[in-house]
Amino acid sequence: MFRIQYDTDVTTWSPAGRLFQVEYAMEAVKQGSAAIGLRSKTHAILACVNKANSELSSHQKKIFKVDEHIGVAIAGLTADGRVLSKYMRSECINYTYSYESDLHVGRLVVQLADKAQVCNQRSWKRPYGVGLLVGGLDESGAHLYYNCPSGTYFEYQAFAIGSRSQAAKTYLERRFENFTDSSRGSLLKDALFALRETLQGEKLTSTNCTVAVVGVGEAFHVLDIETIQGLINEFELAGEEEALAATIDAVADAESAVPEASDAPTDEGAAPMDI
Amino acid sequence: MFRIQYDTDVTTWSPAGRLFQVEYAMEAVKQGSAAIGLRSKTHAILACVNKANSELSSHQKKIFKVDEHIGVAIAGLTADGRVLSKYMRSECINYTYSYESDLHVGRLVVQLADKAQVCNQRSWKRPYGVGLLVGGLDESGAHLYYNCPSGTYFEYQAFAIGSRSQAAKTYLERRFENFTDSSRGSLLKDALFALRETLQGEKLTSTNCTVAVVGVGEAFHVLDIETIQGLINEFELAGEEEALAATIDAVADAESAVPEASDAPTDEGAAPMDI
Amino acid sequence: MFRIQYDTDVTTWSPAGRLFQVEYAMEAVKQGSAAIGLRSKTHAILACVNKANSELSSHQKKIFKVDEHIGVAIAGLTADGRVLSKYMRSECINYTYSYESDLHVGRLVVQLADKAQVCNQRSWKRPYGVGLLVGGLDESGAHLYYNCPSGTYFEYQAFAIGSRSQAAKTYLERRFENFTDSSRGSLLKDALFALRETLQGEKLTSTNCTVAVVGVGEAFHVLDIETIQGLINEFELAGEEEALAATIDAVADAESAVPEASDAPTDEGAAPMDI
Amino acid sequence: MFRIQYDTDVTTWSPAGRLFQVEYAMEAVKQGSAAIGLRSKTHAILACVNKANSELSSHQKKIFKVDEHIGVAIAGLTADGRVLSKYMRSECINYTYSYESDLHVGRLVVQLADKAQVCNQRSWKRPYGVGLLVGGLDESGAHLYYNCPSGTYFEYQAFAIGSRSQAAKTYLERRFENFTDSSRGSLLKDALFALRETLQGEKLTSTNCTVAVVGVGEAFHVLDIETIQGLINEFELAGEEEALAATIDAVADAESAVPEASDAPTDEGAAPMDI
Amino acid sequence: MFRIQYDTDVTTWSPAGRLFQVEYAMEAVKQGSAAIGLRSKTHAILACVNKANSELSSHQKKIFKVDEHIGVAIAGLTADGRVLSKYMRSECINYTYSYESDLHVGRLVVQLADKAQVCNQRSWKRPYGVGLLVGGLDESGAHLYYNCPSGTYFEYQAFAIGSRSQAAKTYLERRFENFTDSSRGSLLKDALFALRETLQGEKLTSTNCTVAVVGVGEAFHVLDIETIQGLINEFELAGEEEALAATIDAVADAESAVPEASDAPTDEGAAPMDI
Amino acid sequence: MFRIQYDTDVTTWSPAGRLFQVEYAMEAVKQGSAAIGLRSKTHAILACVNKANSELSSHQKKIFKVDEHIGVAIAGLTADGRVLSKYMRSECINYTYSYESDLHVGRLVVQLADKAQVCNQRSWKRPYGVGLLVGGLDESGAHLYYNCPSGTYFEYQAFAIGSRSQAAKTYLERRFENFTDSSRGSLLKDALFALRETLQGEKLTSTNCTVAVVGVGEAFHVLDIETIQGLINEFELAGEEEALAATIDAVADAESAVPEASDAPTDEGAAPMDI
Amino acid sequence: MFRIQYDTDVTTWSPAGRLFQVEYAMEAVKQGSAAIGLRSKTHAILACVNKANSELSSHQKKIFKVDEHIGVAIAGLTADGRVLSKYMRSECINYTYSYESDLHVGRLVVQLADKAQVCNQRSWKRPYGVGLLVGGLDESGAHLYYNCPSGTYFEYQAFAIGSRSQAAKTYLERRFENFTDSSRGSLLKDALFALRETLQGEKLTSTNCTVAVVGVGEAFHVLDIETIQGLINEFELAGEEEALAATIDAVADAESAVPEASDAPTDEGAAPMDI
Repeated sequence: MFRIQYDTDVTTWSPAGRLFQVEYAMEAVKQGSAAIGLRSKTHAILACVNKANSELSSHQKKIFKVDEHIGVAIAGLTADGRVLSKYMRSECINYTYSYESDLHVGRLVVQLADKAQVCNQRSWKRPYGVGLLVGGLDESGAHLYYNCPSGTYFEYQAFAIGSRSQAAKTYLERRFENFTDSSRGSLLKDALFALRETLQGEKLTSTNCTVAVVGVGEAFHVLDIETIQGLINEFELAGEEEALAATIDAVADAESAVPEASDAPTDEGAAPMDI
Repeated sequence: MFRIQYDTDVTTWSPAGRLFQVEYAMEAVKQGSAAIGLRSKTHAILACVNKANSELSSHQKKIFKVDEHIGVAIAGLTADGRVLSKYMRSECINYTYSYESDLHVGRLVVQLADKAQVCNQRSWKRPYGVGLLVGGLDESGAHLYYNCPSGTYFEYQAFAIGSRSQAAKTYLERRFENFTDSSRGSLLKDALFALRETLQGEKLTSTNCTVAVVGVGEAFHVLDIETIQGLINEFELAGEEEALAATIDAVADAESAVPEASDAPTDEGAAPMDI
Repeated sequence: MFRIQYDTDVTTWSPAGRLFQVEYAMEAVKQGSAAIGLRSKTHAILACVNKANSELSSHQKKIFKVDEHIGVAIAGLTADGRVLSKYMRSECINYTYSYESDLHVGRLVVQLADKAQVCNQRSWKRPYGVGLLVGGLDESGAHLYYNCPSGTYFEYQAFAIGSRSQAAKTYLERRFENFTDSSRGSLLKDALFALRETLQGEKLTSTNCTVAVVGVGEAFHVLDIETIQGLINEFELAGEEEALAATIDAVADAESAVPEASDAPTDEGAAPMDI
Repeated sequence: MFRIQYDTDVTTWSPAGRLFQVEYAMEAVKQGSAAIGLRSKTHAILACVNKANSELSSHQKKIFKVDEHIGVAIAGLTADGRVLSKYMRSECINYTYSYESDLHVGRLVVQLADKAQVCNQRSWKRPYGVGLLVGGLDESGAHLYYNCPSGTYFEYQAFAIGSRSQAAKTYLERRFENFTDSSRGSLLKDALFALRETLQGEKLTSTNCTVAVVGVGEAFHVLDIETIQGLINEFELAGEEEALAATIDAVADAESAVPEASDAPTDEGAAPMDI
Repeated sequence: MFRIQYDTDVTTWSPAGRLFQVEYAMEAVKQGSAAIGLRSKTHAILACVNKANSELSSHQKKIFKVDEHIGVAIAGLTADGRVLSKYMRSECINYTYSYESDLHVGRLVVQLADKAQVCNQRSWKRPYGVGLLVGGLDESGAHLYYNCPSGTYFEYQAFAIGSRSQAAKTYLERRFENFTDSSRGSLLKDALFALRETLQGEKLTSTNCTVAVVGVGEAFHVLDIETIQGLINEFELAGEEEALAATIDAVADAESAVPEASDAPTDEGAAPMDI
Repeated sequence: MFRIQYDTDVTTWSPAGRLFQVEYAMEAVKQGSAAIGLRSKTHAILACVNKANSELSSHQKKIFKVDEHIGVAIAGLTADGRVLSKYMRSECINYTYSYESDLHVGRLVVQLADKAQVCNQRSWKRPYGVGLLVGGLDESGAHLYYNCPSGTYFEYQAFAIGSRSQAAKTYLERRFENFTDSSRGSLLKDALFALRETLQGEKLTSTNCTVAVVGVGEAFHVLDIETIQGLINEFELAGEEEALAATIDAVADAESAVPEASDAPTDEGAAPMDI
Repeated sequence: MFRIQYDTDVTTWSPAGRLFQVEYAMEAVKQGSAAIGLRSKTHAILACVNKANSELSSHQKKIFKVDEHIGVAIAGLTADGRVLSKYMRSECINYTYSYESDLHVGRLVVQLADKAQVCNQRSWKRPYGVGLLVGGLDESGAHLYYNCPSGTYFEYQAFAIGSRSQAAKTYLERRFENFTDSSRGSLLKDALFALRETLQGEKLTSTNCTVAVVGVGEAFHVLDIETIQGLINEFELAGEEEALAATIDAVADAESAVPEASDAPTDEGAAPMDI
């Protein structure tokens, strides 16, 4: 009952040493539609589920190009994500202007995290309500980071965030050991299969997903709709699904059972401003 | 009962990761009188319902010209909408002054959304209580965007906002597939029919609606009252209504039933400052 | 019971999308003594009821000259009205100084409304508690606007605000169709008759009302007491009252019945600082 | 019970459109010791009751010279009054320095009222708790204004403020019609008689009152104690009291009855910081 | 019960027009140890009771020299008093530097009062919790003022503040008529006798009191301990006590009865930070 | 029950003279994963437990290099720790730039503590939620400090912070007397054994711990994974465990019993943003 | 019950004229470990009890050198004490730089007190939670001051602050009359005996106390551990204890009885951040 006392202000610690407002902001990430990322030594791939407000609208953009060598996929409060990706963009431009070289992915990620920390220690701001998967390529190879509202970041081989991301994470955990040396094509396949896990029975098509790639010799870009449909057709036509089905048996079970029970209701109650 | 704890301050997250104050501001959009927008490849049309405070007054202006190639229709708190359209106007002027070309519609929409985001992260401001349908034409053709109080925006083929907009949306959803290649005249017809849906039995006349057009070779302008009356007469005289009636059968049913039950009371309780 | 949560701060939205503090400020306008405005194509007339604190004092000034071509009548918190009319005055002077022409009435009204909007979005200010009837003449003819605390404005043919203004509005609604082409004299007569409606049985004299005129070839000025008394005498001597009585029959009934029942108590409880 | 919600902050409107904090500040004026003002065409007189904290102290100064042609008498929070009269003084000096002529009384009064208005619209200040009777002489003759905490002002022929001022007002209302053409001496007599009304039986002496005069050919100055005693003696010795008694019969009755019942207790509870 | 609503913030008026926080600050003055002041035409004397925290400490300094011609004795929050006397010191220095003459006592007192007023009208400060007796000599003779937390000041012939000051005030009231023409020695005697009244049976010695003098030909200085002891001895040896006893009979009675009953408990509960 | 009154704001003292918000921030340190430090005369060693969010991610970095001669290990809110280590880094760089010598460890620690103190005395910030073990080498030898959220610091021979650090502290207390003269290798062994104590039965491997060394002739650096695994193998292969088992018998008992009961649940409830 | 209303904000006066937040901060001083000070004409000695967090850490430093001629011992919030001693240090340096002489002890103490006062009058800061014993030597001899959180200071012959300081104060009160003319050695003995009083049965050793001296021909310095142990041995070996026992009989009784009952529990509940 008294717990209420400590959870309305980001500058108030709870007696157990927690900042509830930061945790609540992290809840907003879970409400967003799913985004995933994965990388090999040479390529990083970001993908997300497209959700349109209605038949009439295009879907909300959730993957942003930051620089030639960096992109970001977001889950949570879109407006916050857009503002942060704009910040990243201008950091990259300033760096390139000053040093005539590209900003390292890891360095940009730290600056992004520091910006988030500032919002968590001032009484007149609120924590950002968005999680960011940052994928990029620099001299040390391809990278994938996850920046969260608490001002922390993690380097990942592969990760999924947003609603129903658990199924995708389970898929990625079973496969990630092969990712380091994956070919670009193989990574794309895994990205699409992982994304399908979050769709909960819905069919994956070129219209309900967005996929972006950055890699050696390939600037960050979002794949066009024909390419994606081509990939989807290729993988499914080849009877891949059955072959894979055996491998990811348990996952499929989980997919049909768990999400319907636990994730769906959360989704129903999703904040209307967050797509 | 405890939910109250999290909904009075825009910088406070709820435990479920929602910003209630932003959602409440979005409620103000629903209280405003209806506005609709639709576009073909070459034209964008904005229309809205005119509501006068009394017989004595002219109606509140809800469609604003932003630049030769951009206009905006608002629903919600009129004062907020006017201030934002003024901001858009000065952004366009500054851009043209600096670059000697027109600001792209999409770019203006992002700046507008960023301005809204700022109000959602500071404790001493409040979210804007207005939704904006931005229609415009640039090199990439005609565009229609919806900017909402949460700081997000969507690109639409056609959209309707404000009170009793659901009926208009249903109409637009049935017709929008033809819009891309519609002629200017055909788009205008659809705009007027969609608008009529929001009137709930009231007759559409040249005095209770405003319609604006921007298109190839045609700067953004509000149609004069004679033109609108002409259009209304033309469409109705041609027995269009009956022809259409079959097509939009279900819609008509919904129109007579639903709005009276659910929308009307909301309207009664509308905030007096919001027309 | 919970409604209380949302009505003490102007930056807090209610769950239904309303800003209660703005609505409460609009209540202050209703408490003020009545002011009316009406216009023809060539003339705008402002009039108000004079209320003195006591026999010993002159009445509180409620009509202010803004510029040669613009004036304003207020109802509500006098101090707020005075500060706003001062702002208008300096806007006009600055404009004339810069452009060597008169500021258009409509343009001034927008600036005034924008100023009000700012107070409605900052936590450390309060909405202005005053309504302003702005009458003026520019190249496009005579104009009458009403600016309200919410930051919105309306153009009117004729309008009345303040306590017991309903009776005046009813009178004006019956007559306004003739106003556009009214002569100056005829407009003045309607102004005085409308004002009389708000007096609730009290006799209209040159001391309990103020009337101001602006028109083609006539700078904004308050009529002197002899002129007003002359007009009152003229209209009443001519047996006008009886002739009119038939016309405005229902109004008269309403006048004797309604105000005594509903308006009077409101008046009793009027804020002491507001005359 | 719920009224409490709206009366602790000057930036909060009550649902009925009132600013309670401003009204409460006006209550402070009523708690102050009485001050009166009256004027003829050529002279303005300010007078107040002297109240000393104890036998040991001189009385608190309540009448301040502002300029050669303007003075002020206050009731309420003395510190606020002193600060405001200082502001008036420096406005007069600045004006004279810039324009080499005297600041008009009415103009100064507006500036004073504007200063009060500012305090009524910011959350981090409080309304001034003082009422000011401003008396002065300029090209248009002698003037008397009352500035109140709400930021409004009134022009008066004669007025009284502070505790037990009702009796003085009643006296003045019966007499004010003669004031315009009164001689200086006659005005002084009325000032003293009005002041006596507020003393509730206590005898008027040169030590318990202060009187100041400004007029044609006479700079603003406080009368010395001998002059006042001389006036008191003169009026009373001449059996004036009896002559007047008939005239102001009802007043006298009111004086003996009303104040004792209603005003006295208010006085008892006067704020200790306010003399 | 509801009174609580208005007494925690200095910018909040109570419904009766009082500022409780200012009154509470004045309560702090009453809690301080006693200080007295008195003056003749040529001399001003300040005296106070010394209270040490323990045997181990010297007593807290309560009389400060401001300039050659001005000094101050305080009761209440010592830290506030010290900061204010520092302010006075620098005002005197600045004045002398600019004008090559001494700052008049009355003028300094107004500046001091204005500084206090500022703290009473801003929400982020608190009223000073100290009362100051300012004694000084200028061209118009010796002066004694009392500045209180409310931002008001009074000129006194003689005054006493702080705990158990009532007995001293009673003594001074009986004697003050002679003070104007008193000799320096006679004033000192009255100062010591008045101070003794506040000691409540305790013996007056040179260690439990401080006495300071400023006068014609005598800069402000604190008397040394031998001088004071000499004065104490002189007055008591001369059987003065008995002679005086008759004169101040009623006082003595009051002294033995009243203070023990009413003042002592107040003293017990004195704020620990206030000596 | 009333204790709640004093624990939501860092600028509010409790009646017992405590700052609860500072104590709560210190609780956040206890929630973080364990970190230990120890030093001989010539070497300082920092070590911590690695915790990864999931299989997919690398572990969160908890040991940071500050300068060639200084490093820091953190427990608590990672974002705060990162920001503070960045501050330390720039202090070192600035010092070296200005003085061309290394900043002394103790001096840096004081600056760090002062920065923490500032957050504990302003109402619009919150205390940092992180504890820092600062290890470094300067002219006076190797040093180990602990900086805590309260703005205090302590010099240690050896210390452990974070969850389940009690077992490590017990181990260190039994051994620390030998540390001053320990060889580098012996210190490393003690570091690994102490760290193992915090793992609660889990096996210590090169992947679940990080170890960093700074010493004479050895700049601060994190040991690579092979080196650590080599050390682990060396110590365990040598049957060291059994030999030590006798020595640290009581500790082992405590390890198996206490942590499971008391520490584990705390860990379960750890703030999700804190690794 | 209502007292709660006034004790959470340092800018709020209680109805009895107290600032509870300042008093609560003074409570923090009582929670700190004991510190004592005493002085002769020529020497000032500061001493305090050392408390280490654990066996592993050095004790928290509580005595700081400010300048060659001044030092300070603190009790309470260490971080606040460190920040204030740093302020004192820079004041001394600045003074010496400007005037080429040492800053007088009393002058520094006033500046320190003024700094504390500022924190007690602003709503966004909190009072410092530390008491400071300032010992120093200047032209007027050796001095000892106590600065407390309220912004007041006292000059002492000898004083003790912090937990269980009462026993030391009792000892000092019995002995202080001899201190003025004490030799350096005799003062040191008294310092150690007084310190022992606060240890409550615990044995005084060179490791659980710190002693610092400043005197004629002797800059401020902390005695090294051998010197202190030497003094302890010397005094105890000489059978001093028995000789003294008689003298301080009552004290010893109080020591064994009182502290165990009343002081110990307070100590148990000491704020963890305060050593």
